[in-house]
Amino acid sequence: MSSRSITVTNDGTAQANIGVVGMAVMGSNLARNLASREGNTVAIFNRSYEKTQTVLDAHPEAEFVPAKDYAEFAATLSKPRTAIIMVQAGKGTDAVITELTKVFEPGDIIVDGGNALFTDTIRREKAVRETGINFVGAGISGGEEGALKGPSIMPGGSAEAWETLGPILKSIAAVVDGEPCVTHVGTDGAGHFVKMIHNGIEYADMQLIAEAYDLIRRGTGKTPAEIADIFAEWNTGELESYLIEITAEVLRQVDASTGKPLVDVIVDQAGSKGTGVWTVQTSLDLGIPVSGIAEAVFARSLSSKPAQRAASSSLPGPSSEAFTPADPDAFIEGVRLALYASKVIAYSQGFDAIVAGAEEYNWDIKKGDIAKIWRGGCIIRARFLNRITDAYAENPGLVALVTAPFFVDVMAEAQTAWRNVVADAAKAGIPAPAFSSSLAYYDGLRADRLPAALVQGQRDFFGAHTYKRVDKDGTFHTLWSGDRTEIEAVDAH
Amino acid sequence: MSSRSITVTNDGTAQANIGVVGMAVMGSNLARNLASREGNTVAIFNRSYEKTQTVLDAHPEAEFVPAKDYAEFAATLSKPRTAIIMVQAGKGTDAVITELTKVFEPGDIIVDGGNALFTDTIRREKAVRETGINFVGAGISGGEEGALKGPSIMPGGSAEAWETLGPILKSIAAVVDGEPCVTHVGTDGAGHFVKMIHNGIEYADMQLIAEAYDLIRRGTGKTPAEIADIFAEWNTGELESYLIEITAEVLRQVDASTGKPLVDVIVDQAGSKGTGVWTVQTSLDLGIPVSGIAEAVFARSLSSKPAQRAASSSLPGPSSEAFTPADPDAFIEGVRLALYASKVIAYSQGFDAIVAGAEEYNWDIKKGDIAKIWRGGCIIRARFLNRITDAYAENPGLVALVTAPFFVDVMAEAQTAWRNVVADAAKAGIPAPAFSSSLAYYDGLRADRLPAALVQGQRDFFGAHTYKRVDKDGTFHTLWSGDRTEIEAVDAH
Repeated sequence: MSSRSITVTNDGTAQANIGVVGMAVMGSNLARNLASREGNTVAIFNRSYEKTQTVLDAHPEAEFVPAKDYAEFAATLSKPRTAIIMVQAGKGTDAVITELTKVFEPGDIIVDGGNALFTDTIRREKAVRETGINFVGAGISGGEEGALKGPSIMPGGSAEAWETLGPILKSIAAVVDGEPCVTHVGTDGAGHFVKMIHNGIEYADMQLIAEAYDLIRRGTGKTPAEIADIFAEWNTGELESYLIEITAEVLRQVDASTGKPLVDVIVDQAGSKGTGVWTVQTSLDLGIPVSGIAEAVFARSLSSKPAQRAASSSLPGPSSEAFTPADPDAFIEGVRLALYASKVIAYSQGFDAIVAGAEEYNWDIKKGDIAKIWRGGCIIRARFLNRITDAYAENPGLVALVTAPFFVDVMAEAQTAWRNVVADAAKAGIPAPAFSSSLAYYDGLRADRLPAALVQGQRDFFGAHTYKRVDKDGTFHTLWSGDRTEIEAVDAH
Repeated sequence: MSSRSITVTNDGTAQANIGVVGMAVMGSNLARNLASREGNTVAIFNRSYEKTQTVLDAHPEAEFVPAKDYAEFAATLSKPRTAIIMVQAGKGTDAVITELTKVFEPGDIIVDGGNALFTDTIRREKAVRETGINFVGAGISGGEEGALKGPSIMPGGSAEAWETLGPILKSIAAVVDGEPCVTHVGTDGAGHFVKMIHNGIEYADMQLIAEAYDLIRRGTGKTPAEIADIFAEWNTGELESYLIEITAEVLRQVDASTGKPLVDVIVDQAGSKGTGVWTVQTSLDLGIPVSGIAEAVFARSLSSKPAQRAASSSLPGPSSEAFTPADPDAFIEGVRLALYASKVIAYSQGFDAIVAGAEEYNWDIKKGDIAKIWRGGCIIRARFLNRITDAYAENPGLVALVTAPFFVDVMAEAQTAWRNVVADAAKAGIPAPAFSSSLAYYDGLRADRLPAALVQGQRDFFGAHTYKRVDKDGTFHTLWSGDRTEIEAVDAH
């Protein structure tokens, strides 16, 4: 980070209490959101002024204070200067930070509102802090509409920065039950870490919904429009959530040019933008099994391999007629329960990753607060997040979300149906990787004994990796190539 | 990499054609293996001479040429000097490389035989190459016994280095059907990359075997010794492999102090050393769904969470008596077929990762040759690797291993039983994450249409991520918040 080299005269003309850098859709929507709240005057800046002018022209009601360069931008901001960067994550972000540190002063606040990798945020926070300026990595979820109307915001950074920034972010966040969907997540990269996990859960949730749709369609022959009605119905109950709601909308959409359901016209290859992959890679580093999220990421990458899929289309499988549930309505209700149970597992795994991340990076993350700020504004907003908040309020030391009494009851209600759906999918040849992986994880957690003991035996056999015993302390090795007696090992290798 | 700073006088006393640095078990065993082959004279070096002396004393038959420092080590080696580093991966390796580059000359060869991350090998190869010295990252599999009697060796590096190194490595590798289990995999990090994938497949294979054992035990009530007989029997057929063989050995082992089967005395928490995690993380970067390997890694991490498992032990599940296969022998045969089919998927996914890695890093990897050198010496050595070699020989452009005629026949034979086993496991509450994930992957590949189309619709709805259409070129977006007409997008965002 280069040192400050430009002197900014702040001669009393400073009139904005918050600035936004980057006038693409997310940035301009967030700026408009800020401007619409009482007490805010918003400075805006974009690398090319043309875009700034377009935003100014389109939204005179926002009374934006435009700036043509970084020095002017800094001069328009009252102290402590506070600016939110909304540009493409990566090198673009670094470039803007470098420029802002030249014109900002100690005590000012730079916020990165993009989808940065949390380790980048940790690096940037450390570098910016050396200049005396505060750096806040803030995850913002809700897409373009959320940015405009009220997103869920997950800021990291220092407590000092939160003092100034908190009220501003609270003014623009989504509100649920009178509470704004924003909290100070923790220091440095904590906000972007939690946003990453949010996106990972989003991947799992979307894949689970996709599997539910596929099973119902292939199991009952219902049309997308009929299945839209089912999702709309589900959205009035326990599963009420934004993703269920928009699933009904998407399934109901008819393609104008063909008259077919839009979902049948869309190429069935799902793309991704990296946060799902990051979630799984980070969780692997942390030793947390996020199998539901991983299967969702894998399902997208499998779908995007047209050559492999074409070559595999005639691989042997059951005949498609083989699968006709005796009672379609009961089958659909079973799928609903399987979706619910699998979703609980996805959240349970996601919160495990948050706990492990907090421990690894020394963040004081309040799990119940995270569930609270996800209730509105963000993509995974859902009714049942209240239950997660309650669960952590009742027992802050809960070691696995799924073991909270409320979720135990969900499992009791759902588990038989869940098992039948996974079994039906396997027999019918319908891929349900996230349903089945979540169930296997659940049964792994429950298991009194796991065959991991055999794996340890194998590892000791071929690599002398040693093992522990259930009946005494110490580390042991069997002399497999020798007389097969057991010796106590001094240290594992 | 520091430049050479010590002059080594090579006055005709050089007597060794190969050297080994690092006299821990793997290093000394590899040195003994080298010394036992005709034509080799082996120089040995260890940071502390004490260990060198111990090896000298224990193995006079090897006629090792010991060295007390790097200069002496270099002086004992004939040109081009060739040394294999067998020390702890990481900083230890870097330190030895730095020392060797000081005393070696252009044209000499430094081999890293440790389990290095392939990106480290790429970095090291580039740095060492600048000195004119050759650097070869070589994956070596087979554990301590393999190192001594004949491992499978996966060297990367330059063609020039392979010219000198090839005959030496061929002399010590395992031999199958008259062919040594070593080939020049590709440049720089190719060898360590392929070794990493080898280990990933090993994780999957071990987990699949563990699930097979668990299902048979919980499904039929057979004892570990009885199940050992089943694995021994399987080892005479299609599944013949080192891991099946040692599984029988481990299951048959009786604990001397309790009289119980050893597998019941071992703590059921499986450890790991990183290569499984690397395989999944790397495959995620490459966009390759290695779900079987990922589930194996996750199963180990789940097993190693005793607090979560204890809290989850009373989660609702089916009663354990609920699961009694009508025909135990048929069930066991079904498990065998499920294991076989799932194993094919693990290899198919692993080879996909090799293909993607070769493309990303510009390696000319011959897939059939990789299968060939895995037939002996290494942990995943198995009879059916011949079938993989054949498959790639018949069709070098095979887009998915599972679509080769031989494996299509395996699937035709196995798929119904596989489905039944996955369904039984789901209903009985026995975790079978790798079996079920592999089946879901298989059914995903086969699927005519995937619900990924719905995922694309959702992504377009909340994030304007756009979608492609099945009936025309271009990228499209529905104005979900507007009048819901479709527009053509200029570029995706």
